[in-house]
Amino acid sequence: MIPDRPRAELLRALTDPRAVAIVGASDRPGKLQARPMAFLRRHGFRGAVHPVNPRREEVAGVRACPSVGAIPGPVDHAYILLGAEDALAAVEDCARAGVRVVSLLADGFAEAGPEGRARQARLAALAAEAGMLLIGPNSTGVVSTRSGFSCTTNAAFRVDALRPGRLAALSQSGSLIGTLLSRGEARGRGFSHLISVGNEAGAGVGELGELLLDDPDTDGFLLFLETIRDREALAAFARAAHARGKPVVAYMIGRSEEGQALSVSHTGALTGSAQACAALLRSCGIRQAEQFETLLDAPPALARATLPEGRPRTVTVVSTTGGGGAMLIDQMAARGVAIAGAPPAARATLEAQAIPMGHGKLVDVTLAGTNYVTMKSVVSTLAADPETGLLLVCIGSSAQFQPELAVKPIVDAVAEAPPGAAPVIAFPLPEAPEGLAMLEAGGVPTFRSVEVCAEVASMLLTPCDPDPIPEASLPPRAAALLDRAPAGVMDELDAGEVFAALGAPRPAQALFELELPIVDPGLGWPVVAKLVSTELPHKSEAGAIRVGVPDLPALRAAAAEMRAAAEAHVPGLRLRGLLAQEMRSGLGEVLVGLSRDPLAGPVVTVGVGGVMTEIYRDVAICPAPVTAATAREMLAGVRGLAPLRGFRGLPPGDLEALARLVADVSRIVLHPRVEEAEINPVLVSRDGVALLDALIRLR
Amino acid sequence: MIPDRPRAELLRALTDPRAVAIVGASDRPGKLQARPMAFLRRHGFRGAVHPVNPRREEVAGVRACPSVGAIPGPVDHAYILLGAEDALAAVEDCARAGVRVVSLLADGFAEAGPEGRARQARLAALAAEAGMLLIGPNSTGVVSTRSGFSCTTNAAFRVDALRPGRLAALSQSGSLIGTLLSRGEARGRGFSHLISVGNEAGAGVGELGELLLDDPDTDGFLLFLETIRDREALAAFARAAHARGKPVVAYMIGRSEEGQALSVSHTGALTGSAQACAALLRSCGIRQAEQFETLLDAPPALARATLPEGRPRTVTVVSTTGGGGAMLIDQMAARGVAIAGAPPAARATLEAQAIPMGHGKLVDVTLAGTNYVTMKSVVSTLAADPETGLLLVCIGSSAQFQPELAVKPIVDAVAEAPPGAAPVIAFPLPEAPEGLAMLEAGGVPTFRSVEVCAEVASMLLTPCDPDPIPEASLPPRAAALLDRAPAGVMDELDAGEVFAALGAPRPAQALFELELPIVDPGLGWPVVAKLVSTELPHKSEAGAIRVGVPDLPALRAAAAEMRAAAEAHVPGLRLRGLLAQEMRSGLGEVLVGLSRDPLAGPVVTVGVGGVMTEIYRDVAICPAPVTAATAREMLAGVRGLAPLRGFRGLPPGDLEALARLVADVSRIVLHPRVEEAEINPVLVSRDGVALLDALIRLR
Repeated sequence: MIPDRPRAELLRALTDPRAVAIVGASDRPGKLQARPMAFLRRHGFRGAVHPVNPRREEVAGVRACPSVGAIPGPVDHAYILLGAEDALAAVEDCARAGVRVVSLLADGFAEAGPEGRARQARLAALAAEAGMLLIGPNSTGVVSTRSGFSCTTNAAFRVDALRPGRLAALSQSGSLIGTLLSRGEARGRGFSHLISVGNEAGAGVGELGELLLDDPDTDGFLLFLETIRDREALAAFARAAHARGKPVVAYMIGRSEEGQALSVSHTGALTGSAQACAALLRSCGIRQAEQFETLLDAPPALARATLPEGRPRTVTVVSTTGGGGAMLIDQMAARGVAIAGAPPAARATLEAQAIPMGHGKLVDVTLAGTNYVTMKSVVSTLAADPETGLLLVCIGSSAQFQPELAVKPIVDAVAEAPPGAAPVIAFPLPEAPEGLAMLEAGGVPTFRSVEVCAEVASMLLTPCDPDPIPEASLPPRAAALLDRAPAGVMDELDAGEVFAALGAPRPAQALFELELPIVDPGLGWPVVAKLVSTELPHKSEAGAIRVGVPDLPALRAAAAEMRAAAEAHVPGLRLRGLLAQEMRSGLGEVLVGLSRDPLAGPVVTVGVGGVMTEIYRDVAICPAPVTAATAREMLAGVRGLAPLRGFRGLPPGDLEALARLVADVSRIVLHPRVEEAEINPVLVSRDGVALLDALIRLR
Repeated sequence: MIPDRPRAELLRALTDPRAVAIVGASDRPGKLQARPMAFLRRHGFRGAVHPVNPRREEVAGVRACPSVGAIPGPVDHAYILLGAEDALAAVEDCARAGVRVVSLLADGFAEAGPEGRARQARLAALAAEAGMLLIGPNSTGVVSTRSGFSCTTNAAFRVDALRPGRLAALSQSGSLIGTLLSRGEARGRGFSHLISVGNEAGAGVGELGELLLDDPDTDGFLLFLETIRDREALAAFARAAHARGKPVVAYMIGRSEEGQALSVSHTGALTGSAQACAALLRSCGIRQAEQFETLLDAPPALARATLPEGRPRTVTVVSTTGGGGAMLIDQMAARGVAIAGAPPAARATLEAQAIPMGHGKLVDVTLAGTNYVTMKSVVSTLAADPETGLLLVCIGSSAQFQPELAVKPIVDAVAEAPPGAAPVIAFPLPEAPEGLAMLEAGGVPTFRSVEVCAEVASMLLTPCDPDPIPEASLPPRAAALLDRAPAGVMDELDAGEVFAALGAPRPAQALFELELPIVDPGLGWPVVAKLVSTELPHKSEAGAIRVGVPDLPALRAAAAEMRAAAEAHVPGLRLRGLLAQEMRSGLGEVLVGLSRDPLAGPVVTVGVGGVMTEIYRDVAICPAPVTAATAREMLAGVRGLAPLRGFRGLPPGDLEALARLVADVSRIVLHPRVEEAEINPVLVSRDGVALLDALIRLR
């Protein structure tokens, strides 16, 4: 929660406070509690720093106050280093003293059982009442390089100097802000801010991100996530960042169950499905880094090297070494990046200069590229050609030993390139710190790993626009049906009614109550016959469904036989009746599911039904509700739907009708009583779709 | 090809010659041809170095000879730096002079069209006749660190000193030996030898690897592959290396079609399927690195940190930082590595020392681990516990700033560990060059990237034993059938005969020739009826198959109808007859295919048949023939066979019979005329398998 105060005031108190209180400060060497004061001094913080420690007269040469209230003058920010219970008392002290931002180091909150959770609730309430921005608990602190406000206990900040930068890092893991600082520094990359958000009892990643969007020194964001605590704030931040052209890249733990379990025990977080979380991030325009180093390498590349309007979404690779270029192309192509060679005009220009260009898609200038004039000409000519998309230069040993011959021309060519030229990124094949530094200083994004380079190239060429937000509402009839239904599972008939009210086409049908005579249902013959009961989720196993029933006598016989079989299968079965349905045939069957993920919230899932979908986990997931446009993209992402797309000469199914159905029924999550719902299957034919079976579970 | 000479003599001439001739040597600064002499001098090569250059009296202060023959005294090794045609003449010169090993820099051979291929054939013949070991063409040279024999044109070798090491690198890309040197050096890792094998016109990767197996200074191998030119030599080397406990790790370009195409154009190599090549590597015990840095990080870890007999195949992660440990565990678990916590005995011992151990599977000792005594106790205790598998220590900021507190205890604990203790590897979370160097010097394998660490951990825990070589022979009846069949496609009936002779069970069947009356085939009813023709590969589409034919009149009617349909489908169709088959039902159908990959050679493929297998590319591939044991492992690797393994309570199929069938029929590749063969489908039932349809294509 962000207090209702002017945002500029909060941003300043967060990142550049006039005065900060370090509650529980120590100056014993090696003590964690000694670090914030040492780091603030080392990195030249110019605001006032007040140690608060009732047992000390002075800490690190500064007069100590017994409480925050006793500090003369206003205090904008307090970092509380005390244990959980004492920290709560200190927060009260801060509230009385009018502090704007409090950050807390202590653990013993949400991750520490029921008692800890209650303590965290008290903490959050205290901060909210006082209108204070709360960071943590479990926060290793807040660092802003511009102001030198290195208010942290993270040991990584004992570096000699903080390199400024234009990217903000927000991390749920307190140690990771140090890792990002350290690994970033080795790449010559600095940060504007690094914030350890801890348990997010007060302000979370999304809210802090949104606050930092107003910071003119921040061009993009790195998120290190272990969980998602407030998906709405996160999505709002990400959509606002996208609108302002500030990329957001996230690395999230939890691909494996083991990783998820650790996030839970470590931070008291919930666990959700990795696929649902990935869908949430993507749907609001957050790019998810598959590899950890991508979190460091992607944001600067996205800030500097995105494709200008009109350039093709391809990459052209120039190399001075065949093997290295081939390795990069192989990795990028394996990630679906389209590889282009040299455009014809550029090739002609360069060949006229007797520069070797290689054959095939790799522009292999060979050792001739270890020459300032040649390399500059190659990069300038290719970058200026309007048919070049992204330009990737792979540099061989010369990057290590002769950067002036092979690296400087790249930097100079980029500096002199006309506006709208193709963006240039570079990969030195050897260990080449000097070459890397020269490239980074010249604004050319670089990479240390082939795979990270390939992942980032793919990001640079693939738009990650937020999904449109549907203007969806629940049709009144569907809402009324859901309002009055009892809790638990709705049977096929009632669930079908709700889905029909949402716009899902159904085959014609007729219900026969159990003790009434069965007459011609008027659907034409043959029909499908099923028993209706909430106690028969798997009708085939229970013998409670017959397809191709040819006539009325057969329907009557089937009714009796099915009833006997089902009652044997489920002793004491309660039946609602016999349903006869028009028999439809189609090209394929699809499952559409709606559920509520603990982290990602309501999601819609589409897949081919049946055992194979389960085995291959081949489904598309998206936060629900969705528009038909988003549903169309989901369908394109399900490999198993290939037959319905006209695979190998098969007739294509009506995927447009299916996309509309997915969008229409996804609105069911707008009703708060719906826990989960499923249409399984939807029959897809050449012209249209039909709901064949459905289920809804209500709270 | 390796000449028929004493191997010790060849190994010495290759890596530590008494005299080397540099043919075409120059001393003009910046010239490629000046490099070998400069590097040999720089790295202290103690043999004689003879520049050969008819236009110079002296090169780099050494008297030049006009030809190799004019050099006084024997010459063991010659590196020829001339262009293609001149190089051939120089090879003749070397042959006359009794040189043992020639390496060639020139391009213009197999990669340069028909003329180049002819030139390469001449070159290979010349070397073979003279009994010379030939390296290249397209070789940037041979480097041996121990002897200082840095006989290369690769610019990376201008480093001040060559770090010795115990791993040999063999690369098809000439630039990559420099990349490996440079990136290895940055990790404190040296090599015993680095050889650029070029086009492998003479000696290839496998032959050179086998030669180096006798080198007492080489404990393992790194291969950088763009293609596979001699799979038999490669496999023989890999199996011999495995037998001697020397790990072989390969990185291979060609995951994508783009990458494959580049390998072809770049080196004149053939292209094959990435999956078949991966299967070949694995089957002979070569570990394939998915990420390029794994090629650098895996071999030293495999040489130092393999699991002692009897230890569990699990990893225990100790960390001083929760986020970092969770990230590692997440990545390893996502790769299928089994994660274990602290074994109970070790936990009790350490808790008695008041060391925090965390909850869950991550042994999170928190900041308490930044303490020599604590960290040493944790590592010693866990490594000594017989229930610990692999021990991975994730070190936080202290690795960067206080290696003496957090890194040294790990090194000391490993040094003092009893024999058979759990192997220890380490991952410093920050950029920590000093900590990394300390760990490497202490024999503790380290990693820079989370994903590479996870990949190598998985390698350390997963045995990669070569597949057993089947003692397979072709049954005489199968051989006779294949010998006498005409070229082209064998029809179902003849192919079925061959597979039956190989041991594949078939349903009972009867063939009716076309103009003969159809009588009761004596198979019981119903039967399956099919038309037999080599022109009907897709019987269903042609209306040429009927299942469930209930009686004789129906069979007769079906015969007439199918014939009309098929003749309409394929005008002028030549039919062999009508086949009636006993109708069998089973639990699932499987495809077994045999083919010859251009690189990997004969392979057997197993998958679930049908469209879904094609969409998901879910098949297992192995070099053929295979044993039943290998076939069993293949079946375990096909996800789509889950229903036959008893997925979700379904009855399991007879996978043992299927494995035997795969092994039996895989022997068909022993017949040289078989281009490809397929059983599609094999019907799998609860007790047994049956071939339902088959096809063989002969040369």
